Amino acid sequence: MAEHRSDTWFSLAELAGHIGAVLKGPGTLRVRGVAALEDARPDQISFVSHPRYARLVPDCRAAALVVDASLEGLERPLLICGDPYLAFARVAQLFAEPLALIPGIHPSAFIGERVQLAADVAVGPLAHIGNGCIVGTGTRLSGSCYLGREVRLGEHCLIYPHATILDGCQLGDRVIIHSGTVIGSDGFGYAHDQDGHHVKIPQMGMVQIDDDVEIGANCTIDRAALGKTWIQQGTKIDNQVQIAHNVVVGAHNLLVAQVGIAGSTKLGNQVVLAGQVGVIGHITIGDRVRVAAKSAVAHSIKDGEDMLGIPAVPIKEWMRTHGHIRRLAQMRDEIKRIKSIVKNLEQALQGNGHE
Amino acid sequence: MAEHRSDTWFSLAELAGHIGAVLKGPGTLRVRGVAALEDARPDQISFVSHPRYARLVPDCRAAALVVDASLEGLERPLLICGDPYLAFARVAQLFAEPLALIPGIHPSAFIGERVQLAADVAVGPLAHIGNGCIVGTGTRLSGSCYLGREVRLGEHCLIYPHATILDGCQLGDRVIIHSGTVIGSDGFGYAHDQDGHHVKIPQMGMVQIDDDVEIGANCTIDRAALGKTWIQQGTKIDNQVQIAHNVVVGAHNLLVAQVGIAGSTKLGNQVVLAGQVGVIGHITIGDRVRVAAKSAVAHSIKDGEDMLGIPAVPIKEWMRTHGHIRRLAQMRDEIKRIKSIVKNLEQALQGNGHE
Amino acid sequence: MAEHRSDTWFSLAELAGHIGAVLKGPGTLRVRGVAALEDARPDQISFVSHPRYARLVPDCRAAALVVDASLEGLERPLLICGDPYLAFARVAQLFAEPLALIPGIHPSAFIGERVQLAADVAVGPLAHIGNGCIVGTGTRLSGSCYLGREVRLGEHCLIYPHATILDGCQLGDRVIIHSGTVIGSDGFGYAHDQDGHHVKIPQMGMVQIDDDVEIGANCTIDRAALGKTWIQQGTKIDNQVQIAHNVVVGAHNLLVAQVGIAGSTKLGNQVVLAGQVGVIGHITIGDRVRVAAKSAVAHSIKDGEDMLGIPAVPIKEWMRTHGHIRRLAQMRDEIKRIKSIVKNLEQALQGNGHE
Repeated sequence: MAEHRSDTWFSLAELAGHIGAVLKGPGTLRVRGVAALEDARPDQISFVSHPRYARLVPDCRAAALVVDASLEGLERPLLICGDPYLAFARVAQLFAEPLALIPGIHPSAFIGERVQLAADVAVGPLAHIGNGCIVGTGTRLSGSCYLGREVRLGEHCLIYPHATILDGCQLGDRVIIHSGTVIGSDGFGYAHDQDGHHVKIPQMGMVQIDDDVEIGANCTIDRAALGKTWIQQGTKIDNQVQIAHNVVVGAHNLLVAQVGIAGSTKLGNQVVLAGQVGVIGHITIGDRVRVAAKSAVAHSIKDGEDMLGIPAVPIKEWMRTHGHIRRLAQMRDEIKRIKSIVKNLEQALQGNGHE
Repeated sequence: MAEHRSDTWFSLAELAGHIGAVLKGPGTLRVRGVAALEDARPDQISFVSHPRYARLVPDCRAAALVVDASLEGLERPLLICGDPYLAFARVAQLFAEPLALIPGIHPSAFIGERVQLAADVAVGPLAHIGNGCIVGTGTRLSGSCYLGREVRLGEHCLIYPHATILDGCQLGDRVIIHSGTVIGSDGFGYAHDQDGHHVKIPQMGMVQIDDDVEIGANCTIDRAALGKTWIQQGTKIDNQVQIAHNVVVGAHNLLVAQVGIAGSTKLGNQVVLAGQVGVIGHITIGDRVRVAAKSAVAHSIKDGEDMLGIPAVPIKEWMRTHGHIRRLAQMRDEIKRIKSIVKNLEQALQGNGHE
Repeated sequence: MAEHRSDTWFSLAELAGHIGAVLKGPGTLRVRGVAALEDARPDQISFVSHPRYARLVPDCRAAALVVDASLEGLERPLLICGDPYLAFARVAQLFAEPLALIPGIHPSAFIGERVQLAADVAVGPLAHIGNGCIVGTGTRLSGSCYLGREVRLGEHCLIYPHATILDGCQLGDRVIIHSGTVIGSDGFGYAHDQDGHHVKIPQMGMVQIDDDVEIGANCTIDRAALGKTWIQQGTKIDNQVQIAHNVVVGAHNLLVAQVGIAGSTKLGNQVVLAGQVGVIGHITIGDRVRVAAKSAVAHSIKDGEDMLGIPAVPIKEWMRTHGHIRRLAQMRDEIKRIKSIVKNLEQALQGNGHE
């Protein structure tokens, strides 16, 4: 299984048409899977995403390659396009087998009252669909997933096993929720009484997830205290990410694994938070901000800034400070040298009867 | 759903009585939900938790406001009390709808042998209640939750879908366990043989969780190797927190999201660990210690200390060190200046025939 | 339950034989459980893993103790061996009760088509075994666990409740997967179109887990984009660990809780990553490397190195830098002192008519 082989065949002409590539070679040649350059077999197609991989081409057994114009001289069937990596994603999507869920409701699933499922929705074995759920056409609910009450899902969503979507949460179209992820857990909100004991503030809001969002495995997205926690269109979230109550995550963001965002913080569009980043609550992160792995964001950040560190500062500032720290041994040596010169000067002055 | 509206109505007089507030305005006026100042509708009540939000009051459409004495001059129905945020928590609890679980056992649930459920316990669809479990009155076990063998739950607990409570663990009264959380997984303990291979030490203890504890989503609380891992009364734990074997977490703590505590460490009472904090094993954290987000605690801490950093140090010490680091550029400049003065002095002395 | 008591009794002679210890005392004396020194009762056996615990021996009520040669003079029944901690692990394994799963398939479980289960496999209530799964002898599949399609499990594996093993993943023999863990979630891979939108790269590979691997609760191990993500023999993984697509984790590693490893990184054998460590993608970590808690690994590391820090550097280097930082206040004072001496020198020279 080091490569992918589906039961579906496509001709090179079909693939070139699908990705808008220029075909060099026999349009009728057919392939039935994609593979990395070093693993590909003669019935598969591969790709060169970067010139540094061109050295692997001579030994590659693939039927054809997706390349950019710089490699159009290669003596083998080629699909030439502007962005081979993007083209590969689109070719691979053609071959990817969808999770084998047959439309229809498995008899072992629990279906509550007043549930509205589009005719072609798939509900796998042992799934739980709570009262009043509404699910759009083409959506697949895997075995052992859980929808609470009054959950709304759009069209062509995919909910993996052991995902949990709690009461009142709303998902748009083409949303993917991976296994173990919890949507709509209570936010972490407490008032304090005179004894310092914590008094729960009921979390009465919901979570809204817009179209084309994908959320990885074992994430937690808390419902709002009041109002909504909101993940906007096209944002992709990796595994084990924590989003607190009332956070707004803008459109087309990338949140890498183990990121945590505290309550009521707002992220702009096309933000990238690398792995294990933490973001404090009640701040605003501008559009296109990028934060390096493991950083801790403690203040609002304006559009387009690249940040790093604990606490996070603009990368240039971090590099400067970090450079100073690396040169500390050198500074100490310099101070020692100056001290010894100054001592000599003192002695020289005293030796000459000064003072 | 940007606000909360229940089907239950309360009069202002009833609410004032419930929270011990002074009522200014018509006691018979009724509301049926709570909302933030900017979202409230005329059939809801809102609150001002801090004077900085007073500017939102003129545009607020709520029927009444919970405020403190500093705002008693406002010309609208008021519930005046000492701590509006705490009062709001208690009002909101009145309106919060409990998870819709009907007492009784759903026929699709699995119930083991020798299980003792109080008469009004709710067991949702596809739940798993292992042999010998004992569950107290008023406790709600959601659909798709899992209790192993010989699990004991007190009264009025709430176990969310896909929560897992493994063999022999014991929970007190009013404990809430959110979705995806695992109570009683094996601690991470291995001896090593002569080849450097890891030999599993069976984890034969359990987890004890005391009254009024709430544990967020996707947490992991490991069972003890021997004895017990112990979460004491009133402690609140956010999402994705990891508690290793034989840890003791004292009473009324707050552990924020993504915290990790290594084995056998003991936390005092009213400790606060902010998000992503890590605590090493086999140490003791005193009462009322607070640790700032993302810190790494590597040594025991005495009562009442505020800590910050990797490794964590008292905040004052961190500020001092951090201040020095920020002034490094300035130190370098000063050294340069001194060097040039010293050079001039040397030349002056030599120019005057010294030496 | 502060101690462990099974229904099985073993004589000291049997236990000494099992662990290869020298027995001092009555071989026919029988015990039925293990306990810590301070908790042990007269029908249990305890152990002294380190001389510092010898002070607890006089008050210990255990029937016998596992000790090393340095304690052979104690006046009580002893099992004397080279490594009491390792010996304890092996004794405890004798007493540990396996998860009570009876061979056979519970009628509430879902079993797909073309599934091949060895005759003595246990499948608990509400478990989901997808089409085409193959499961070896002695393997126990807990209630409410989930296997997708074409999953292969070896012999004597143990899959805990709410664990999820997705389509096409392969596990060796004696593999343990704890609750809430997801094996085979999609890797986090996207190409980008001309609008900066993320285009999903189908994740078409799998996860291979070799013999004797144990994976804690709520971990996530992503399937490869193409090829496999690979956890090699004997490696032990704690809770909430994230392994990205195409990572290779070598043999006999220890990955402590909340570690995250980014895509395509390769770890050697006997590597130890302490809690909350993050490792960047596309690098290579040598054999026997150890990384201290909370560190961020940003570059490849050669064999045998001990690393610490954000970014991680060899521990000696970190100690040096950290020492410099701690002495910054002292450096500032020294600069001040030199400044004042230099000023005096200047004045002395000027006072003497120099310049």
